[in-house]
Amino acid sequence: MLQPLSPERNNERFNALVAALESGRMVRLRRLLSSLHPAEVAHLLESLPPTTRHLAWQLVGAGHRGEVLSYVGDEVRSDLMSDIAVEDLASLMEDLDPDDLADILRDLPETVVEQVLQTMDAQNRRRLETVLSYPEDTAGGLMNTDTITIRGDITLDVVHRYLRLLGTLPEATDSLFVVDRDDNYQGVLLLTTLLTRKRELTVAEVMSHGVEKIPASLPIAQVAQRFEKRDLISAPVVDEEGKLLGRITIDDVVDVIRDEADHSLMSMAGLTEDEDTFAPVFISLRRRSLWLGINLITAFLAAGVIGLFEATIQKQVALAVLMPIVASMGGIAGSQTLTLVIRAMALGQLSQSNIRWLLSKELALGVLNGLLWALVIGIVSATWFKGVELGILIGAAIIINLVFAALSGVVVPLFLRRIGADPALAGGVLLTTITDVVGFMAFLGFATLYLI
Amino acid sequence: MLQPLSPERNNERFNALVAALESGRMVRLRRLLSSLHPAEVAHLLESLPPTTRHLAWQLVGAGHRGEVLSYVGDEVRSDLMSDIAVEDLASLMEDLDPDDLADILRDLPETVVEQVLQTMDAQNRRRLETVLSYPEDTAGGLMNTDTITIRGDITLDVVHRYLRLLGTLPEATDSLFVVDRDDNYQGVLLLTTLLTRKRELTVAEVMSHGVEKIPASLPIAQVAQRFEKRDLISAPVVDEEGKLLGRITIDDVVDVIRDEADHSLMSMAGLTEDEDTFAPVFISLRRRSLWLGINLITAFLAAGVIGLFEATIQKQVALAVLMPIVASMGGIAGSQTLTLVIRAMALGQLSQSNIRWLLSKELALGVLNGLLWALVIGIVSATWFKGVELGILIGAAIIINLVFAALSGVVVPLFLRRIGADPALAGGVLLTTITDVVGFMAFLGFATLYLI
Repeated sequence: MLQPLSPERNNERFNALVAALESGRMVRLRRLLSSLHPAEVAHLLESLPPTTRHLAWQLVGAGHRGEVLSYVGDEVRSDLMSDIAVEDLASLMEDLDPDDLADILRDLPETVVEQVLQTMDAQNRRRLETVLSYPEDTAGGLMNTDTITIRGDITLDVVHRYLRLLGTLPEATDSLFVVDRDDNYQGVLLLTTLLTRKRELTVAEVMSHGVEKIPASLPIAQVAQRFEKRDLISAPVVDEEGKLLGRITIDDVVDVIRDEADHSLMSMAGLTEDEDTFAPVFISLRRRSLWLGINLITAFLAAGVIGLFEATIQKQVALAVLMPIVASMGGIAGSQTLTLVIRAMALGQLSQSNIRWLLSKELALGVLNGLLWALVIGIVSATWFKGVELGILIGAAIIINLVFAALSGVVVPLFLRRIGADPALAGGVLLTTITDVVGFMAFLGFATLYLI
Repeated sequence: MLQPLSPERNNERFNALVAALESGRMVRLRRLLSSLHPAEVAHLLESLPPTTRHLAWQLVGAGHRGEVLSYVGDEVRSDLMSDIAVEDLASLMEDLDPDDLADILRDLPETVVEQVLQTMDAQNRRRLETVLSYPEDTAGGLMNTDTITIRGDITLDVVHRYLRLLGTLPEATDSLFVVDRDDNYQGVLLLTTLLTRKRELTVAEVMSHGVEKIPASLPIAQVAQRFEKRDLISAPVVDEEGKLLGRITIDDVVDVIRDEADHSLMSMAGLTEDEDTFAPVFISLRRRSLWLGINLITAFLAAGVIGLFEATIQKQVALAVLMPIVASMGGIAGSQTLTLVIRAMALGQLSQSNIRWLLSKELALGVLNGLLWALVIGIVSATWFKGVELGILIGAAIIINLVFAALSGVVVPLFLRRIGADPALAGGVLLTTITDVVGFMAFLGFATLYLI
């Protein structure tokens, strides 16, 4: 079981920073900020309320700002960038990798992107344009262009001399990519192989074919699955013709995995994975009220169903007391199945052949849980309101609702995916609408037929 | 925005496998399974219903079984291991890394662990015992002991010769660890540095001090944060005295990140992150019905509140029609705040100094959303039931419930963490209990006072 985080270590630095901010000790603050890794500065900025965040941002050294921006979430990033004059943006981004740069540029207006591109040298501009030409959520949009390529016919000794000539290697370099004359990807030479094999051998003799090339159009979620399954550190990205375009490194994949997993959690509450925890009230208000509005429609729908049975409730008020139990049990049971299915979808576990099995299983669980809790709820209700019929009625409604809940929990997300909607975002709303409507309809309908 | 996965590629293989299973073509199936990476076999097994899963598992070559087990989730693993005789377990685990082995052994009875330990040579046994001596959720439990260590006073040329002598390096080796005579950690020599710098230099001259040592007792969630922030590929683990014990590699950290993020999602539905999607009905039934039982208690509590106002509802049945709207809006608004706070906790964003700001913000959102939707719901209700007082009453109840929802969304998870409970697991139940009780109490209470 994972423990919730105890962020003591962060807190120390964080509290020192806030203390410095509050007491206006700007010199100390500036020193504090410059001693941190850009990722830590990014994390601190994400944890600050708006006013303090902008104050701290002003104190981040100009040379670090670009890298800090590459570490913050999309929402916080546009918040921070609103502080920077367009003419300063270009210089700020000089030292960034093409993939981080592309990520930032996608959020900026066309004119700013043009300006930034103009300040770059021809080679970097071409690299950046390659990355920008692929959508953000594909391998091409995620890749970096800092690959080191070698030919297969040279000896390891030559490779050694070449690397010493280069003097430095890009971060997260665990392998060199072997290409032919036309830049077609052939395989990788792992640095560990380069270091352990005899110098006289040629690259072709020792290179590994185990790292599959990734098509630039592959969705990043699938890139992440491939990295997870094969324990990759870097992998080559190629165009449709197999020509090497760049590479994807594990640090970018980790961000994808974190975002992807957060996506399901946050979407189920109508939030986004980039949600800025400390966004100003009025920015949050729009999205939050929209979500409440959508849910209100379904609440009125459920109220409409109850409204059909006003006369019945009038005669037997116990129904009004007990009806939320029927709806609530259906909602809870349905959410369990829905969450399980959404996670299975995200992990790529579902296919034609096992969905039927899963549906039967969930239905069986619905029936069994229905029988169990129908009994409990029936007995409690019958005792509470001294009416055996009422107990039988609510029991029957519970069974029906739990079976519908199981069915909806499997079918709703599959249907939403089929029509291209996001199951994590729309699934919960649709599911509770169904369990509310079915629950109220079954319970109050039975009551009208048999009780009154 | 992340797209839900389209698992076409997996599906092809998966369907071929299921077709072979169903048609009983065991030879083809065995060939199919042996052509896959152990991680892919693990993924396929996780995607199969019980009977088919055990059939396929019988066909996995004995030499691969250990590694396949290291890739499956905890629940599926104990399912698969139930098929294996104790005397076969030891041989199955021969080729596993100590960290994977430790992970598997923790789930086995003491006697089996003893048997496995006895089959190992002294060095491997000592390594495994080191890993087993630390809890599973700490750096020590996650680490591997396959470190390559060197001294600072030798030249890079000597390191080169040493590595060629070794012949192979462990997976995910991006650096060698520099230790002193007493095994105290000094720094890392990156392979990229080793390859690009002059051979005459000593290790001490070029080693990096940028990779902080990780105490063996550090919780894995914090290990993951450090890897994410620093873009690490491997990092040294040390004991209290600073002696090098082993290393943690990014592939294990990726699993931690995936589990951690899944944990919040699954816990909020009363499931675990290791949940076997295809567990047999009776195994799932126990956990699911327990969760429904807990939620039933809160549903009866809400029903009890409604029961207090039976007389009021009798006189004005419109109240029964509208009351689920008040409870539902509170539940939805509260869940948004709760989810945001739980995510912020998991990311280590919350501290003394920003919680107060967050609470004020969420309260402000509660008031604003309350006013907005009180107006809408009030007007619709007044029109529907032709009663202005009713509209005003429900509006007031909505405002009160949304403010309480915001307050609970922040306070409930903080309180649960303080008392050592898991906010993701218990937060939702507690929150909806509060919003149900407050919603019904406010709406029906006001109605009793002013309407009747």
